[in-house]
Amino acid sequence: MNSRLQAQLEFLFEIDQLKHIFRRTKLLNGSRYENDAEHAWHLAMMAMVLVEYSNEPVEILKVLKMVLIHDLVEIDAGDTFLYDEKGSSLKEEAENRAAARLYGLLPEDQGREFIDLWREFEKKETSEAKFAAALDRLEPIIQNVKTEGHAWVKHGITKNQVIQKNQPPLMGGSRELWDYAGKMIAECADKGYFKD
Amino acid sequence: MNSRLQAQLEFLFEIDQLKHIFRRTKLLNGSRYENDAEHAWHLAMMAMVLVEYSNEPVEILKVLKMVLIHDLVEIDAGDTFLYDEKGSSLKEEAENRAAARLYGLLPEDQGREFIDLWREFEKKETSEAKFAAALDRLEPIIQNVKTEGHAWVKHGITKNQVIQKNQPPLMGGSRELWDYAGKMIAECADKGYFKD
Repeated sequence: MNSRLQAQLEFLFEIDQLKHIFRRTKLLNGSRYENDAEHAWHLAMMAMVLVEYSNEPVEILKVLKMVLIHDLVEIDAGDTFLYDEKGSSLKEEAENRAAARLYGLLPEDQGREFIDLWREFEKKETSEAKFAAALDRLEPIIQNVKTEGHAWVKHGITKNQVIQKNQPPLMGGSRELWDYAGKMIAECADKGYFKD
Repeated sequence: MNSRLQAQLEFLFEIDQLKHIFRRTKLLNGSRYENDAEHAWHLAMMAMVLVEYSNEPVEILKVLKMVLIHDLVEIDAGDTFLYDEKGSSLKEEAENRAAARLYGLLPEDQGREFIDLWREFEKKETSEAKFAAALDRLEPIIQNVKTEGHAWVKHGITKNQVIQKNQPPLMGGSRELWDYAGKMIAECADKGYFKD
């Protein structure tokens, strides 16, 4: 077989592991934790449906590619909880190594495209990266709203922490989606889902 | 809240159920069955990586949207095993009802776009639909190759059935991917994964 196709297939086999990386938030019916592949799919669906709320015009194809690949590095580096303040430089190092290994499985041109896309997502500077980051924050807020604040309650998160971590990226990508998320967070505070 | 956004969010909440629809094939490490959301994510990754093997030029954005939504109707209609010959007209009816209900949750313009996209996928006539259908067949073949033919063995599938069901859509979308899949199927026959 063509060695280019062989390399592409090896990459596609390897990333099956994303289905085994579990997040801190549960599916909307509360039955189990969500994994990273499901999360990436749901962000892609959100991107398609909510693109009109991006603050800035975006190229939707780039947003879709970005959200589909954004957590692949967690196959090696593991999921990091948003509210975990420890080890963020260690995390960056581990994710860079993961990107080099995983995207290194691909033919060079494709590996380069994906690494560039992932770095663009991480930097949150372009319109597409800002909108993708907003969606990445909105999904777990919705999951907490629908599961009696499961991850917030379990890990003793305060309302201030939630606002501090989510308002800047959400407002940066979509003021309208932040308006909605902010209202949800206020309702969750009334229901007692936050520490304090 | 803006009723358009409310409708869009209701749709995005509802489709969380795709994560509970299980398929007949297992994850590549054999630990459990794959669900439809993971499957859709993996097809989207395959589309991005393997697009150069499409027989005809395709608009990749359309392929991505198609594979992301292609199984949503299974939330109501359930997963159908490729080799199950019974009830395909009942299945069509159930899937049409499912499409009307699920896409009916969206604002009309978006619901219409998604239903059109889903019907285009189902008809397998355009280049994008043909390539998407080829990927939809390739993934379970890979999963069977990697799990000692799990679904084929469990359901007593013959090599002829596999070729009959997979060769036309795979060749229709990508002759090169069919070349690869055909070789894999021949190897699986040597290993005794098929009935007969």
